[in-house]
Amino acid sequence: MNRTDNLTELNARVLAACRELATLTEVPGETTRTYLCPTTRDVHAFLRAWADWLGLSTTVDAVGNLRSRRESAGARTLYVGSHIDTVPNAGAYDGMLGVLLAYALVEALGDRGLPFAIEVLAFSEEEGVRYGVPFIGSRALTGTVNEMLGLLDAEGQSVEDAIRAFGLSPDDLPAARVTGGALGYVEVHIEQGPVLQAAGAAVGVVTAIAGQNRVLLDFRGRASHAGTTPMAHRRDALAAAAHFVVAVEDRARNTPGLVATVGVMQARPGAINIVPGDVHCTLDIRHERDAARLDALPALLDDAQRFAAERGVTVTVTPKMEERATPMDAGFQALLHHAADDEGLLHPELVSGAGHDAMVMGTVMPAAMLFVRSPNALSHHPDEMVNPEDVEAALRILLRFVERLALEVTA
Amino acid sequence: MNRTDNLTELNARVLAACRELATLTEVPGETTRTYLCPTTRDVHAFLRAWADWLGLSTTVDAVGNLRSRRESAGARTLYVGSHIDTVPNAGAYDGMLGVLLAYALVEALGDRGLPFAIEVLAFSEEEGVRYGVPFIGSRALTGTVNEMLGLLDAEGQSVEDAIRAFGLSPDDLPAARVTGGALGYVEVHIEQGPVLQAAGAAVGVVTAIAGQNRVLLDFRGRASHAGTTPMAHRRDALAAAAHFVVAVEDRARNTPGLVATVGVMQARPGAINIVPGDVHCTLDIRHERDAARLDALPALLDDAQRFAAERGVTVTVTPKMEERATPMDAGFQALLHHAADDEGLLHPELVSGAGHDAMVMGTVMPAAMLFVRSPNALSHHPDEMVNPEDVEAALRILLRFVERLALEVTA
Repeated sequence: MNRTDNLTELNARVLAACRELATLTEVPGETTRTYLCPTTRDVHAFLRAWADWLGLSTTVDAVGNLRSRRESAGARTLYVGSHIDTVPNAGAYDGMLGVLLAYALVEALGDRGLPFAIEVLAFSEEEGVRYGVPFIGSRALTGTVNEMLGLLDAEGQSVEDAIRAFGLSPDDLPAARVTGGALGYVEVHIEQGPVLQAAGAAVGVVTAIAGQNRVLLDFRGRASHAGTTPMAHRRDALAAAAHFVVAVEDRARNTPGLVATVGVMQARPGAINIVPGDVHCTLDIRHERDAARLDALPALLDDAQRFAAERGVTVTVTPKMEERATPMDAGFQALLHHAADDEGLLHPELVSGAGHDAMVMGTVMPAAMLFVRSPNALSHHPDEMVNPEDVEAALRILLRFVERLALEVTA
Repeated sequence: MNRTDNLTELNARVLAACRELATLTEVPGETTRTYLCPTTRDVHAFLRAWADWLGLSTTVDAVGNLRSRRESAGARTLYVGSHIDTVPNAGAYDGMLGVLLAYALVEALGDRGLPFAIEVLAFSEEEGVRYGVPFIGSRALTGTVNEMLGLLDAEGQSVEDAIRAFGLSPDDLPAARVTGGALGYVEVHIEQGPVLQAAGAAVGVVTAIAGQNRVLLDFRGRASHAGTTPMAHRRDALAAAAHFVVAVEDRARNTPGLVATVGVMQARPGAINIVPGDVHCTLDIRHERDAARLDALPALLDDAQRFAAERGVTVTVTPKMEERATPMDAGFQALLHHAADDEGLLHPELVSGAGHDAMVMGTVMPAAMLFVRSPNALSHHPDEMVNPEDVEAALRILLRFVERLALEVTA
């Protein structure tokens, strides 16, 4: 195999690599790679081989991110990448596609001189599976990972101990941090939703990563006999919770851009002939504008209180997560739109409802994301897929983006 | 101890016996007596001792019902009783109270001549716990138990084998059946609900045992990412099911006498950030008039179909149970009302939302029930309780009922 700037050939190699790397798993028969699991080394070896072949200098930083640099005369660095960990029983493209496209980009650039370095980032952890909290990889680059070192996994091993067990050292965390000279971060990722498919577009430019709140709700009424308790005497926790679910759907449907979900709903004691005394449920609410989300959340929680009070039921709300929205960099977005125009491709805007490393990177440098159509809208599922021509479109746009950025930096 | 017609003293003995018999259990530390469990023999021994002392002739029939007869010159028989089995971790009064009050009634009658025999019935099975289907005891008397003999319990033992293992024989089933001469059946039972407590009445006369339907509903949509799936692209099974729960509550509240309950509600996959793709829930619907119930049920199932279809969700309905309403005998009801008047007691009418042996007995003879107030409305719970004076009121009314029935039979 020779180095090539044939993007169709490069793209075929990216897709083959996605499929091959999906076989590197900690659970036989599926694709499961949580933070620093043993097969992380095999993924590193695969990527390092490509990087070496391209003449990049590659290191593994203190949290296990594999980082390959293409140096340049310029002092600044463009970061390009995504993550190599997965959810349990994942697909082949979530994260890995963006990592491999970054290497393909570097190969496509060949010997071209650029006024900035490129650093390919293969983040070790984005999904939040092993420690319940995501972004260990990118937070190492922004210097915000220290507070996570004491977190414990299901076996009671801390992040710090996991790092040492992998042969790395938390003492090297300062060196992992980006302290200056960053031009920005760009990430290609599958959409994980139906928007581009519905728009008939191969790719889309992300305007913002939605902010989100997650809360737990516990409705407490009184369990009673379904036959002997007249309606007027009930304190039905499920009836209150059901009104809440209806209100959540109504408000989200009537608020442009809002998505709100009750994903968990358990009624107890849970017998066909017993009025439910307790209901545990959840709310996940997201919007690209913080104001819209922060209007909707208290209104919905007020609704929950009202539905409960009307039935002699109480409701306890426990906040679980709050993330502010992260707008993507306007200049980088414009470059992506122009790059897509250069290729004669549709380039709709869309919001990312899911969190991504670009959210973290965006706190310290300009960040942007290009989404690739998910033809079946499946995400976090072994049947997750991409159209090969859509991936090639993303690669072409990434190359145009770098060319345009080079012109801007030079100018 | 001497036989007494002092009803206060008899009542105290009934209540003490309820508490003592509650210690006869197959699960230490709680009151649990399923069909033909070993402690059934201890209950039988206790009741037989009282019966022997009263001079009654006692037998155990083919399904394990303990039956004690007070003979008379008259050819007909009044049946009085309730059941001795319990739900898991039960209270002390559900069933047993009615059995013990029947023996107390016989003791209170002393040597008084009556134009009919009295047979005290201690049904071996009413709750449906061991075999999932209730009324093995009373169905032996109505000749409808044969079709149940092949049912298996959790250990795979059939009803027939359980009967033989207890030392009884299914060959004796014909002898258990009431084939003629029945004057009727009367049963005292705790209300298991809040109606008499709200009415400030010690007892109430049951007009009917509600008919009921139980159905399972399975909503099937599509699980998807809570962040990346816009509202318009969702097929949210829980949103559909929640609308159903709201409709169930609305219809029951607006239909006098209807009780309708969604007791089970499970959303799958059940993660905070995943739109539920599947929901399993149940409906239990009851009314004293079959027509009212049979109007409401299809309307609610149509609602479910509509809520589902509006969201690209399907719903499968699986019927689990259908029982017709059983009106109590009008003549027996009138006797109970008059008996309560004789004692200067309130005697509101109420519907039994729960099934009872009187439902089965009512298919072959006049049947009636007197409910005793449940002060805390707790049922199927170790804290189930009764007021002692309410139980004495029931005993007094039972005695008056028999006196008035004797006058009617003689006349």
